[in-house]
Amino acid sequence: MPEANSKAEYLVGVDLGGTKILSGIFTSSLKCVGRSKMSTKAERGPEAVIERIAHCIQDAVDECDLDLKQVRGVGIGAPGSVDPDSGKVMFAGNLGWKDIALEKELGKQLDLPVFLGNDCNICTLGVHEVELEGKPRNMIGIFLGTGIGGGLIIEGKLYHGFNRTAGEVGHMVLEVNGPKCTCGNKGCWEALSSRSALFRQVQQAVKDGQKTILTEMLGNDLKDLRSGDLRKAIKQGDKFVEHIVEEAAKYSGIAVANLINIINPEVVVLGGGLMDALENEMMSVIIESAHEHAFPGSDKGVKILASKLGDNAGITGGAVLARRETK
Amino acid sequence: MPEANSKAEYLVGVDLGGTKILSGIFTSSLKCVGRSKMSTKAERGPEAVIERIAHCIQDAVDECDLDLKQVRGVGIGAPGSVDPDSGKVMFAGNLGWKDIALEKELGKQLDLPVFLGNDCNICTLGVHEVELEGKPRNMIGIFLGTGIGGGLIIEGKLYHGFNRTAGEVGHMVLEVNGPKCTCGNKGCWEALSSRSALFRQVQQAVKDGQKTILTEMLGNDLKDLRSGDLRKAIKQGDKFVEHIVEEAAKYSGIAVANLINIINPEVVVLGGGLMDALENEMMSVIIESAHEHAFPGSDKGVKILASKLGDNAGITGGAVLARRETK
Repeated sequence: MPEANSKAEYLVGVDLGGTKILSGIFTSSLKCVGRSKMSTKAERGPEAVIERIAHCIQDAVDECDLDLKQVRGVGIGAPGSVDPDSGKVMFAGNLGWKDIALEKELGKQLDLPVFLGNDCNICTLGVHEVELEGKPRNMIGIFLGTGIGGGLIIEGKLYHGFNRTAGEVGHMVLEVNGPKCTCGNKGCWEALSSRSALFRQVQQAVKDGQKTILTEMLGNDLKDLRSGDLRKAIKQGDKFVEHIVEEAAKYSGIAVANLINIINPEVVVLGGGLMDALENEMMSVIIESAHEHAFPGSDKGVKILASKLGDNAGITGGAVLARRETK
Repeated sequence: MPEANSKAEYLVGVDLGGTKILSGIFTSSLKCVGRSKMSTKAERGPEAVIERIAHCIQDAVDECDLDLKQVRGVGIGAPGSVDPDSGKVMFAGNLGWKDIALEKELGKQLDLPVFLGNDCNICTLGVHEVELEGKPRNMIGIFLGTGIGGGLIIEGKLYHGFNRTAGEVGHMVLEVNGPKCTCGNKGCWEALSSRSALFRQVQQAVKDGQKTILTEMLGNDLKDLRSGDLRKAIKQGDKFVEHIVEEAAKYSGIAVANLINIINPEVVVLGGGLMDALENEMMSVIIESAHEHAFPGSDKGVKILASKLGDNAGITGGAVLARRETK
């Protein structure tokens, strides 16, 4: 791997998603000074995607009137199962990747050291170190989007576990005979409370004749449905959408209670696209349901917060990782 | 607190339960050389119970032809919510205790240093350090009895969490609209798979007219039903009892899968009275169900074992705690 230039001051964080790549340039004190965004084009294959990541980073660097030589290292969060030791993405369904040496290949393209982590772990790292100033000894980060994932900070450090898959909270079964999940099981949290779960419920209900403002907004097929549309529908008084979102939030509260019972963290932080879009509609329901279901005493003083980093959690965490690894 | 006599070689471990007190005398290499057992008599109040613990320890010491002066320290596991820092039992429903300074009071009676922990944490410590020789970096201990509790070893150390209640796995909700639990929620693991849950299901079914060998064995009221009776009934071909036990074991497997997804330990160890009585009937079902429900990849190589320590897990863990704290 290329060596870190110890005189270089800047850090790059990258959030690699199934549909978009986000890059951020950070100072050594983790202030974001510039960002760049690009579509992933996963269908073009891993080599092309890695070139696009390099391109996206170069765009962000250029936007800040900087040069790659002023970058100390790159931290990148990738979806799916990731091996931080070998720097490989072992398996990522939404990218169609299997056993891709992302650290090495991206490092070669940029002539910079690259450090890889699981996307939700990296987001958790960003929230912990920057948003919460590294204070909580024990914390859980939960990210609600198309799926649901998480990361654990235990005794101040990102915790990986035996197969380095710790924090796979979205496939916690909450309802043994609940709706089918993409993982093959039934009643996983992800199948009850993710964006996909919400959309599936709305679409099924509409098919079954349910009336909703959403069809007036988007047509009967609801083809372009987005999280923000649910918020708009609720704001316009759509009780059906409100009910669906509330039920999902109640399940999320139960999942948070389970995590508080098991791990007893000081802070639980919720983020991700769905949370960003529906924070006002979901957060108070989640908090109430979590306290209602937590074992008495275990939730005392435990903070349940919505992250303010939004889209920036991943790139921030990437920069934290790069800083840590090039120190 | 009385000082540890550094020349004393022996350690005492105590398992304080709602119905019985168990004491064990251990060498400094954690070999058990003697045990003593006594009923708790919780109804006589904390002072009397603490006297009984001291008495039980003295009996065990005497049984080994030893003297209390040869004991370096006492480690004790108590049920309910325990504060290891202050040495107090904050709340223990089955003892009727609230805010009892067990470390201090027992220490005074014995003139020995006493160290307190939550019973399931202490059992986990015993299993980890003695049965598994301290090898797994990350481990979950689960104890199935009247209730279900657990303990976590993270990066080689007992993990407590923010309110020191980590490992409260029994109140993980698995079935949102499932049977009512003593904690007030519905569908907790404890309400589905504990001994109380099994007994409740059997008794309800008999009331509803279900035929079973158990009523021939124990009479229609099933008043003296014990875990071992379920095993005997299954051995005699009682399909109804077999089905109830299997269903409970399936739920336990789902709970184990959830824990593997979240914490990704190297080893999951199951113990406790119910497991001791029904290991042959439940263990293979639990393992199969756990692997079936774990997120693909997260359970790879993860060992799911039944503890061989049985009743001795608590006293062993107490001795481990005493050794650690008096080193």
